[in-house]
Amino acid sequence: MRNIKLLIEYEGTNYAGWQRQNPRKPSVGAGFKPAPTIQQTLEDAVEQIIHEKVVLYGASRTDSGVHAMGQVAHFKTASEILTTKLPGGVNAHLPPDIAVKSAEEVPDTFHAQFDAKSKVYRYTVLNESLRCALFRNFCYHFPFLLDINRMKEASQFLLGTHDFQTFQRHAYYTKKNTVRTLSMMEIKKEISFIHFLLEADGFLYNMARAIVGTLLEVGRGKITPDEFKRILELKNRRLAGETVPAKGLCLMEIKY
Amino acid sequence: MRNIKLLIEYEGTNYAGWQRQNPRKPSVGAGFKPAPTIQQTLEDAVEQIIHEKVVLYGASRTDSGVHAMGQVAHFKTASEILTTKLPGGVNAHLPPDIAVKSAEEVPDTFHAQFDAKSKVYRYTVLNESLRCALFRNFCYHFPFLLDINRMKEASQFLLGTHDFQTFQRHAYYTKKNTVRTLSMMEIKKEISFIHFLLEADGFLYNMARAIVGTLLEVGRGKITPDEFKRILELKNRRLAGETVPAKGLCLMEIKY
Repeated sequence: MRNIKLLIEYEGTNYAGWQRQNPRKPSVGAGFKPAPTIQQTLEDAVEQIIHEKVVLYGASRTDSGVHAMGQVAHFKTASEILTTKLPGGVNAHLPPDIAVKSAEEVPDTFHAQFDAKSKVYRYTVLNESLRCALFRNFCYHFPFLLDINRMKEASQFLLGTHDFQTFQRHAYYTKKNTVRTLSMMEIKKEISFIHFLLEADGFLYNMARAIVGTLLEVGRGKITPDEFKRILELKNRRLAGETVPAKGLCLMEIKY
Repeated sequence: MRNIKLLIEYEGTNYAGWQRQNPRKPSVGAGFKPAPTIQQTLEDAVEQIIHEKVVLYGASRTDSGVHAMGQVAHFKTASEILTTKLPGGVNAHLPPDIAVKSAEEVPDTFHAQFDAKSKVYRYTVLNESLRCALFRNFCYHFPFLLDINRMKEASQFLLGTHDFQTFQRHAYYTKKNTVRTLSMMEIKKEISFIHFLLEADGFLYNMARAIVGTLLEVGRGKITPDEFKRILELKNRRLAGETVPAKGLCLMEIKY
């Protein structure tokens, strides 16, 4: 069997996230048509090209509404299709909001999720009083005045290895080991947009969005940078800010 | 009567262009539901706020599928609404793909279209072998290798005052005076995207898109920069390249 690694871009707006079937979602009555998932849609398109059932393993299980410019997935196949032919062929069977950007053959042991050394996410906030039209699906409109330097100061406390329990969605989403290492935390302003760039060896459920939500509270003046530090240390989700909407989040890169 | 000037942003994908009703379009059979226009949609939203019939005069009649970050329009009203209250109020009645960015009271004589000194358009090409997903509605996917310097060289012949008949869509769209002054023509590469920035005192119908279509022929090696110069001089639309798709075009700014 060959092992094929795909680089994938998608707009998450019209999907129920990456993962095929979601056992976390409660079942609902007849007549309910769930949104398709990215994984299922991609598997269907790949199967059209290689005429073989495949299972795609994604590096990151992005939530409903979250976008990706650099999702990575792998699948095993007996097909002898040239990897150079694969992206164009698969794209022809994909809806316009999903695109395969490249395909390459990798060693049999490569695993898109388990071999990932780090993941880079970007969260985008539109910080002006009025909403926008063109980038509405790719940013969170936050109309209150934000102090960027204050957010930068607070965000530096996140760098390094910490127990990030404060920024994990609780209940049955909880992971046992909540220690992660954040290796990049940048905040950049571009006209009225503020981009939050986060790189870590792994992210807890909703971690990036809870971090940004809490930093916005700092930027707005509701929390001081020192209080932010304490909130991280206290490992109590209720102290953190709200989880900002999925549409502002984009998976930028998986590093191996 | 007060005269109000609006700055407007929109994604043109789902609209039949700016202009309310299009007398150019042939009538079609029963059951056909035309796409809404930007102008009509905005007029309806403004009327919801000021409780008065309005007619919006736009600076530029963008085609179906063309976007705008800097469209300008004006309307006359007896309403005493504060201009600071207008954008947020109107936006609440607009679909998410249209947004008013600002409103200001202007002298009675101000006319969005006739007072415009120049217009800035940007055309975006995605120049890589594979299509994209995230910006699919905002760029034209052109997979063939392009020589940017060659296109830059050719594009410089457009600067200044010329008869741009070559780049005007013919038949009943024809304007009498086809002389225009192009004051900016820039080509910029940003990763795999190539942006064409054009500023002129006015654009003939489809002029920006026909210019870009012809420059792509230059970039691809089918026309030399000198041939491009001759095509401009010969004033014959059939010599120019194809009119590239509307979705890559965005009205950036109207200068007064």
